[in-house]
Amino acid sequence: MQVAIVLYPGFTSLDVIGPYEVMGRLPGTEVVFVAERPGIVVNDLGNLSVDVVTSLADVPKPDVVLIGGGPGQAQQMSDGALHAWLRRVDRTSVWTTSVCTGSLILAAAGLLKGRRATSHWAALDHLGEFGATPSKERVVVDGHYATAAGVSAGIDMALSLAGLQLGDDVARTVQLIIEYAPQPPYDAGSLETAPPEIVRMATERLAQRFPDGRG
Amino acid sequence: MQVAIVLYPGFTSLDVIGPYEVMGRLPGTEVVFVAERPGIVVNDLGNLSVDVVTSLADVPKPDVVLIGGGPGQAQQMSDGALHAWLRRVDRTSVWTTSVCTGSLILAAAGLLKGRRATSHWAALDHLGEFGATPSKERVVVDGHYATAAGVSAGIDMALSLAGLQLGDDVARTVQLIIEYAPQPPYDAGSLETAPPEIVRMATERLAQRFPDGRG
Repeated sequence: MQVAIVLYPGFTSLDVIGPYEVMGRLPGTEVVFVAERPGIVVNDLGNLSVDVVTSLADVPKPDVVLIGGGPGQAQQMSDGALHAWLRRVDRTSVWTTSVCTGSLILAAAGLLKGRRATSHWAALDHLGEFGATPSKERVVVDGHYATAAGVSAGIDMALSLAGLQLGDDVARTVQLIIEYAPQPPYDAGSLETAPPEIVRMATERLAQRFPDGRG
Repeated sequence: MQVAIVLYPGFTSLDVIGPYEVMGRLPGTEVVFVAERPGIVVNDLGNLSVDVVTSLADVPKPDVVLIGGGPGQAQQMSDGALHAWLRRVDRTSVWTTSVCTGSLILAAAGLLKGRRATSHWAALDHLGEFGATPSKERVVVDGHYATAAGVSAGIDMALSLAGLQLGDDVARTVQLIIEYAPQPPYDAGSLETAPPEIVRMATERLAQRFPDGRG
């Protein structure tokens, strides 16, 4: 299995590193980070620089495609080389996947029409603009598309896909290796559980960073 | 607040990116990735290359120090430039922290003597060899030392420290921004919940990668 993880300037690092840490540990699986413009790709916060040596053209037939979100997503919404590559590899991929606002890129490329999909809570409604059906779940699997909610949700998605593809025991073994028995010290990780004041502050913070309202 | 995150060859990426995603979003906080030898630093799985431009000497007085684990940890256990830097910055740091087997490096540098600390489950007992008291918890705070269990536990640690340092609402807001409301599809993330067969497989996998038994 070859997994291609797409990076672009302004990506959110945990969106991709969460599922990477799972997928990279699956037996018989090779992960490759790819970018439209190889070289140093800098994340949204501006202090993590990843050296990507592989271009989209170098990976014509990945078994799994993963694209994350982040404020840089807004610059990846126009049709072009990335969208064309996504459409092409999607024809043969076993799984085409996203985390956070990465689903907006898949949707803008025309891949999620008529599909149920999720995204970061602050961006979920935008999926409808591209013909997808927003579904307020942490992980949504529809056909060979798997989408995860915001940032940290990619870990849950990757474990789910690992189980579907390679069996529960393989997924459980990786879960134990990465000691994924989360104990968040607060219960404010979703719109349903966060106090209204926290929702207001988070929404404001996201709006400052991402003036178009996409987290 | 300045946060220095130490990278070294063979680091496990989620160990550092989990807490980075939290700390990097805290108000008034600057995060800098540092390495003993700046340049491209490659992770344990061999396919993530981070371009680190800052040396240890460039960061003489960080408020927070974080070091993660990974198989490369075994090469960071001898006294030398990294240990000397850790001891020096620890004198003035507000928090000296680790994720996974990063705690073994802190301990080997002499910083955890008489302190309770945690680590990856496969490495926890080794902490005692350096005068620390192994504590089987996900996050341990003792004095100004905070240690997290394996790989994914750094997210929980960072949120806890954010709350201690900047207040619960700041931590909760970041939790909502990264939509950290985990829903693991399996309950195998700890020794206590994983079936014995999964523990056996995970232990074997870790022993293959890390012949000294340190995860």
